[in-house]
Amino acid sequence: GFASLDHHRALRQGFPEVIFCEGKTVLQVVAIAKTLLRKNNALLATRVEPPVARALLRVSKRAVYHEAARVVAIAPPKLVRRGAVLIVTAGTADIPVAEEARVTADIMGSKTDTLYDVGVAGLHRLLGQQERLHDARALVVVAGMDGVLPSVVGGLVRQPVIAVPTSRGYGAHFGGLAALLTMLNSCAAGVGVMNIDNGFGAGCLAHRINMVGEA
Amino acid sequence: GFASLDHHRALRQGFPEVIFCEGKTVLQVVAIAKTLLRKNNALLATRVEPPVARALLRVSKRAVYHEAARVVAIAPPKLVRRGAVLIVTAGTADIPVAEEARVTADIMGSKTDTLYDVGVAGLHRLLGQQERLHDARALVVVAGMDGVLPSVVGGLVRQPVIAVPTSRGYGAHFGGLAALLTMLNSCAAGVGVMNIDNGFGAGCLAHRINMVGEA
Amino acid sequence: GFASLDHHRALRQGFPEVIFCEGKTVLQVVAIAKTLLRKNNALLATRVEPPVARALLRVSKRAVYHEAARVVAIAPPKLVRRGAVLIVTAGTADIPVAEEARVTADIMGSKTDTLYDVGVAGLHRLLGQQERLHDARALVVVAGMDGVLPSVVGGLVRQPVIAVPTSRGYGAHFGGLAALLTMLNSCAAGVGVMNIDNGFGAGCLAHRINMVGEA
Amino acid sequence: GFASLDHHRALRQGFPEVIFCEGKTVLQVVAIAKTLLRKNNALLATRVEPPVARALLRVSKRAVYHEAARVVAIAPPKLVRRGAVLIVTAGTADIPVAEEARVTADIMGSKTDTLYDVGVAGLHRLLGQQERLHDARALVVVAGMDGVLPSVVGGLVRQPVIAVPTSRGYGAHFGGLAALLTMLNSCAAGVGVMNIDNGFGAGCLAHRINMVGEA
Amino acid sequence: GFASLDHHRALRQGFPEVIFCEGKTVLQVVAIAKTLLRKNNALLATRVEPPVARALLRVSKRAVYHEAARVVAIAPPKLVRRGAVLIVTAGTADIPVAEEARVTADIMGSKTDTLYDVGVAGLHRLLGQQERLHDARALVVVAGMDGVLPSVVGGLVRQPVIAVPTSRGYGAHFGGLAALLTMLNSCAAGVGVMNIDNGFGAGCLAHRINMVGEA
Amino acid sequence: GFASLDHHRALRQGFPEVIFCEGKTVLQVVAIAKTLLRKNNALLATRVEPPVARALLRVSKRAVYHEAARVVAIAPPKLVRRGAVLIVTAGTADIPVAEEARVTADIMGSKTDTLYDVGVAGLHRLLGQQERLHDARALVVVAGMDGVLPSVVGGLVRQPVIAVPTSRGYGAHFGGLAALLTMLNSCAAGVGVMNIDNGFGAGCLAHRINMVGEA
Amino acid sequence: GFASLDHHRALRQGFPEVIFCEGKTVLQVVAIAKTLLRKNNALLATRVEPPVARALLRVSKRAVYHEAARVVAIAPPKLVRRGAVLIVTAGTADIPVAEEARVTADIMGSKTDTLYDVGVAGLHRLLGQQERLHDARALVVVAGMDGVLPSVVGGLVRQPVIAVPTSRGYGAHFGGLAALLTMLNSCAAGVGVMNIDNGFGAGCLAHRINMVGEA
Amino acid sequence: GFASLDHHRALRQGFPEVIFCEGKTVLQVVAIAKTLLRKNNALLATRVEPPVARALLRVSKRAVYHEAARVVAIAPPKLVRRGAVLIVTAGTADIPVAEEARVTADIMGSKTDTLYDVGVAGLHRLLGQQERLHDARALVVVAGMDGVLPSVVGGLVRQPVIAVPTSRGYGAHFGGLAALLTMLNSCAAGVGVMNIDNGFGAGCLAHRINMVGEA
Ligand SMILES: Nc1ncnc2c1ncn2[C@@H]1O[C@H](COP(=O)(O)O)[C@@H](O)[C@H]1O
Ligand SMILES: Nc1ncnc2c1ncn2[C@@H]1O[C@H](COP(=O)(O)O)[C@@H](O)[C@H]1O
Ligand SMILES: Nc1ncnc2c1ncn2[C@@H]1O[C@H](COP(=O)(O)O)[C@@H](O)[C@H]1O
Ligand SMILES: Nc1ncnc2c1ncn2[C@@H]1O[C@H](COP(=O)(O)O)[C@@H](O)[C@H]1O
Ligand SMILES: [Mg+2]
Ligand SMILES: [Mg+2]
Ligand SMILES: [Mg+2]
Ligand SMILES: [Mg+2]
Ligand SMILES: [Mg+2]
Ligand SMILES: [Mg+2]
Ligand SMILES: [Mg+2]
Ligand SMILES: [Mg+2]
Repeated sequence: GFASLDHHRALRQGFPEVIFCEGKTVLQVVAIAKTLLRKNNALLATRVEPPVARALLRVSKRAVYHEAARVVAIAPPKLVRRGAVLIVTAGTADIPVAEEARVTADIMGSKTDTLYDVGVAGLHRLLGQQERLHDARALVVVAGMDGVLPSVVGGLVRQPVIAVPTSRGYGAHFGGLAALLTMLNSCAAGVGVMNIDNGFGAGCLAHRINMVGEA
Repeated sequence: GFASLDHHRALRQGFPEVIFCEGKTVLQVVAIAKTLLRKNNALLATRVEPPVARALLRVSKRAVYHEAARVVAIAPPKLVRRGAVLIVTAGTADIPVAEEARVTADIMGSKTDTLYDVGVAGLHRLLGQQERLHDARALVVVAGMDGVLPSVVGGLVRQPVIAVPTSRGYGAHFGGLAALLTMLNSCAAGVGVMNIDNGFGAGCLAHRINMVGEA
Repeated sequence: GFASLDHHRALRQGFPEVIFCEGKTVLQVVAIAKTLLRKNNALLATRVEPPVARALLRVSKRAVYHEAARVVAIAPPKLVRRGAVLIVTAGTADIPVAEEARVTADIMGSKTDTLYDVGVAGLHRLLGQQERLHDARALVVVAGMDGVLPSVVGGLVRQPVIAVPTSRGYGAHFGGLAALLTMLNSCAAGVGVMNIDNGFGAGCLAHRINMVGEA
Repeated sequence: GFASLDHHRALRQGFPEVIFCEGKTVLQVVAIAKTLLRKNNALLATRVEPPVARALLRVSKRAVYHEAARVVAIAPPKLVRRGAVLIVTAGTADIPVAEEARVTADIMGSKTDTLYDVGVAGLHRLLGQQERLHDARALVVVAGMDGVLPSVVGGLVRQPVIAVPTSRGYGAHFGGLAALLTMLNSCAAGVGVMNIDNGFGAGCLAHRINMVGEA
Repeated sequence: GFASLDHHRALRQGFPEVIFCEGKTVLQVVAIAKTLLRKNNALLATRVEPPVARALLRVSKRAVYHEAARVVAIAPPKLVRRGAVLIVTAGTADIPVAEEARVTADIMGSKTDTLYDVGVAGLHRLLGQQERLHDARALVVVAGMDGVLPSVVGGLVRQPVIAVPTSRGYGAHFGGLAALLTMLNSCAAGVGVMNIDNGFGAGCLAHRINMVGEA
Repeated sequence: GFASLDHHRALRQGFPEVIFCEGKTVLQVVAIAKTLLRKNNALLATRVEPPVARALLRVSKRAVYHEAARVVAIAPPKLVRRGAVLIVTAGTADIPVAEEARVTADIMGSKTDTLYDVGVAGLHRLLGQQERLHDARALVVVAGMDGVLPSVVGGLVRQPVIAVPTSRGYGAHFGGLAALLTMLNSCAAGVGVMNIDNGFGAGCLAHRINMVGEA
Repeated sequence: GFASLDHHRALRQGFPEVIFCEGKTVLQVVAIAKTLLRKNNALLATRVEPPVARALLRVSKRAVYHEAARVVAIAPPKLVRRGAVLIVTAGTADIPVAEEARVTADIMGSKTDTLYDVGVAGLHRLLGQQERLHDARALVVVAGMDGVLPSVVGGLVRQPVIAVPTSRGYGAHFGGLAALLTMLNSCAAGVGVMNIDNGFGAGCLAHRINMVGEA
Repeated sequence: GFASLDHHRALRQGFPEVIFCEGKTVLQVVAIAKTLLRKNNALLATRVEPPVARALLRVSKRAVYHEAARVVAIAPPKLVRRGAVLIVTAGTADIPVAEEARVTADIMGSKTDTLYDVGVAGLHRLLGQQERLHDARALVVVAGMDGVLPSVVGGLVRQPVIAVPTSRGYGAHFGGLAALLTMLNSCAAGVGVMNIDNGFGAGCLAHRINMVGEA
């Protein structure tokens, strides 16, 4: 078969296997989705192009397509969202990655909030919202171009910060490498870094951190 | 002056400014250490070469030199350690970075434990200790060479995992770049990555996550 | 002329020159295929896009188009397949590369078997099939993203392992470079590495190893 | 001969040819210095290791060795310093590069001032000194590690900003490449970037900008 | 909201926030443009593709589309242009980047002039125009391929030079990286470097330098 | 104007300025071609896409479009070709670059010959043609993938060898970088290297070497 | 403890855990060696610097220090060597890596032979020894600089070829990267690649392949 | 044996095998030198460190140590030098590489001349010597840092130009990579590039080109 699904994952990690749609045919995605849904009654599919989204929406009426996030999600029945995850972006164009993170954390059971387009070119936009930073259990900070926002946020708070570089940029940006390196070398301590554009991973890690506060 | 110390940091982030000794003269380190100690009654200095260590040990009788970790630390008086941070390594040569992480989390107030030299070349060494993995609030996984251990640990647990690549390796390892890329591309979700050899950052982030469980 | 075919190759290496179709026009491929077929009565063409495939299918009725593998093959008459080559993948999206390897080894005269989508995010999928690993003479392990599967397989078996990184991934994957570096730095000994997406080379090497057991 | 000196440079650019000492023998440096001094009655030598410094100090009593900057300088007689160049650093270890910039601008005829160790990990250190930023005609901002300080300064001021990455850092810093890329991708407009550790170039450019205000 | 505009920027830096259109939808760009225009009565949008340009031209009759520069601009009422910025290119294909720089400096209030296609393959083209080089307060030098022109110009003048690498080239040019490195390593002192293709940043920096002469 | 043509080049270097068409509009190319043709009565345009070719063919009846080479050429009247340049390729897909070299050398006045598809996978193809190698004054060797052919040819002959890497390859080929590095590190002495896919440069250099034998 | 030895490895893979000495202290190496020797009565330690070698020679009288290979080895009692592994090098300076491979294969139980310094700059040296190539079950080909020898050998034989790049080279060799890329992109099929300087891995893989012929 | 000397090379290529001393022991170099000298009565050894030089000077009284070039050479008896090779450098620190080229071409039988330290920062130094450029049959142009000199020379002459990047530089020079890329992307046609610091290769190629004029 083309897939050996990990049906044990929900038990082991609290949420079923997630479908990463890049490199899979529509037929493969739908077949995997049906099996996962039957076993787990919940679903998360990422990197969903419109034709795949349409096919997944036909699989279940509960399926929701988060277009900006390129995600299709089916929440487990009676999901209660808890804690507080805050998603921050430097610019408008970083929002798709931020939304992938937000929807992921949300569907796994975290309360989420957002603070978008507060990059350091106009620093007062961030400094005027410091209270919202202090209210979260975990922060996800998404930035392209120079990728400096996580360093600045990391210097202001005492909570865990998850930095996500985006591929937004040009020239010596090298598809997000510049922002990634900025974040890995951050002078602010307590900042963990995700792969470029990996909103899913950031949302998942933020949720896990958030859950530490529930145990 | 050669230093503008951030005396506000302990208040803002729970622990005073840490001295990163690389690129500073012995005189500079000692002067900074004395000022920080006077204001905060606690100290952490990393990347401490032996001559710097000797100078710092003369600054205070409470100073302890953790040689493997290349760290000098002075715990705040009456520090109570809480929660549970587990530090895991793939090999023996990853231990210095792991110890930098462990001492950092410890001095900031986390209970720490270790599981060293359990790389995937002999997988049973890790699989036989799975319970210890599940007992921690946050895991730090340190690996050089191929850097695969965080992916395997990340697939086994539901807690946040902090992956730290080390510069141990040769050839196409490029000073830790190979292990770093492995970790950034991990198929396991919920893994945040630190800079190569950044045990300090990992210990700090693990402590912050651990503290989410205390709030 | 645009091609100086190596008509001596079947004699020297047991199988005629293979047509690598990228960068050749349809007319060039067809002309080369006809000449090779006339001299050798067998054919392998790789990286075959659909229009090229259609043209090659018209060259001979015995030609078979393996779509997932992007390969057109004509087996030598009365080919007897021998030994045992096992092809393993980490994910579903690695299958095209794996199939290029499988069809190559098959057409050269190896018995082949497959074990797909058993990546370390759900380790039990691999551990539950260890016997199949031990039954092969040579293993081809195909993985994208973090590329960790060959390290894990290499730690479990005593046979030669051929690792093939795929370009599946994003961000700091750099078109397969991340997985390639993981494999080159594998802690498991006895792992040889192929170029990114080079299923053909892996199949060919696996077949050569397999034939060592026939001599 | 081993050197073809550019005796026309003082006329053309306002200051004689500068001796970059790396890769030259002590004898070569001294011979060049003597010739330049005779023709121009001023001298700047950079990247001066102690033995070279000692030899240069013997060439003229007016020679001054700026040890932190690794520079030997002889000011032109009756030099009047004008305007205002401000040199800023993120950390203590960036000071050598900053001092190379400062001495260069100074010896060419600019008034200089400094603001050291005001990195974003403790942002109030910079924000509390904003007036000093606004008083300069040109700002040189020197930073290693994540290299974010120029982006933040660039967002606060309306003057030209010259960003200088330093090789201070480790791991995925790659000898200053990380900081360099951060600066090249700065979201703040009006930031020009120098080569890693190129304090000399920064001082020279700052002086040229400063002189625009004198014309 | 998808945008937190920096309405304070005109006050702080002399010109309102500029819209970087890459990665924003047409609707987002138009909404941002309207708000900025209402508050500032001036506008600059860069990286404007034709459909975005058409939408912006409908926002205000004063909007002008500079096609070669891919810029839409609305000059502040009664703008008086001052000083002198010269834009130089090595080849014809570098002109789009040069025009982005020129329009930016122009709309911010600088007088601009151009000298295009004077690369070193035919050096007399540049040497015959040296007087025009000496008449500017700031020079922007744009070059692709080997990127050597800024080094040559930098050796001829005493004013600040802003070097802009372009992505024009092939093979080991790596999207402009070759030209960027040439410029960063320039033997000519007083050359500041911008990101690849960043005409906007160069125009902005040239304008700021030009204004030093007005204060 | 958009072009400052180098009308002095034919005098200085024996052939008029060549039009590199990438990044120029059809109108620009045609205008430049007309001017050059009027002054020099000869023309070479490289990287000519079909629409540009059609426009150039309308400029002069003598214009010839070499499709495989992507070149349009007009030979100077009464051109006498001299000497001997040999163009060698490793594979069929390297022919376009080889033809760009051949047409360039030809139009400048060199006699040319070719030996295509003689890569080392079937070494006898090259070894059987050694006499032809010895008959040339200069050899151009074009290869993609591993780029080893120039090393082998360089070990067999005593004439100058020009190595040209091509972008043909995949995976860790990185657009020709792998072949380029092979050639730069060649163990065979007397091998000069061109940029990836730079057939034009190779043809031009081969012609210059060939002309040394005519002086 | 600093080491969790894999005592199950001899059973699983036919030879006990090997000690990679880089990054371990002398005390650690000796302690590990004693434990391994007690359990397995055989030992292999690689990357052994002289002081470590001296310490290991004191651990057992049977220990042999292979200086060129930087290896200390203790053969299992009554080891019978079988089959045929041939180690080939391009140059004299590649011999240390080749010897690491040879000693590894030997101690594991393979018969080994060598053919050193037969690079393609003087091709007749290799072509005159083709029979020895055909007599092996597996070939290890070690080369630095351009790394072309494995491509040439791979085109001549029908057995599995293991290519090992060495760090021997300079300039654009980048510590062996150039040779590594050459080998990964080899036009010859059936070539598996090891990490730079990884003689141990090559010897181990060659032995495993050799053993396929014994089963 | 550790060396398989290519005794056929003098016949095939006009000069015996050259000893590249890096990575060889003194004993190996001396043994190789004696054998080569006996067979050919001429010798060239490059990258000769002082102890190796002393050993080689004892091998023959005719041996000469060119210290700046790090070369030991023994000219063939009655060598007649012919033609004209010109070696040009941008700076003083490039001279060692230039001298390696000069001595190589000289010992092989070319007349050589030099023009050192004429980089573009002071362009008149080169422009004032144009006649000497036109008198050579082949030019070797050596440059570090930005590596722009070959582009400028290549635009002035009609002869073949060999560009040699040096590792002289710092920061984003990456050991010569910046200069190498500049040269590979040169806008001037007819420029062939050597590996970083490869003076030997440049001298050898220049000699071969020079000899085309003798045939
Ligand atoms: N061509 C350009 N290159 C780089 N930055 C730009 C360019 N055009 C505008 N900007 C800046 O980029 C920022 C836009 O960030 P945002 O639109 O919020 O993602 C603004 O601060 C602009 O000043
Ligand atoms: N956006 C994403 N980025 C990275 N990994 C993902 C993403 N979405 C899903 N995954 C994970 O990727 C794995 C899918 O592997 P595969 O078998 O190839 O589908 C699953 O374990 C998912 O948890
Ligand atoms: N295929 C080619 N590769 C590199 N350079 C070329 C090529 N074709 C033409 N040129 C050169 O590129 C320069 C064109 O610069 P421009 O057209 O002004 O941007 C001319 O000097 C040509 O000699
Ligand atoms: N998928 C593949 N990857 C790499 N090499 C291949 C592949 N398919 C065929 N080849 C080899 O590539 C060579 C083709 O060279 P060419 O003359 O350019 O067609 C032949 O020697 C084939 O054995
Ligand atoms: Mg914004
Ligand atoms: Mg171990
Ligand atoms: Mg799967
Ligand atoms: Mg500080
Ligand atoms: Mg032009
Ligand atoms: Mg072929
Ligand atoms: Mg040799
Ligand atoms: Mg000089």
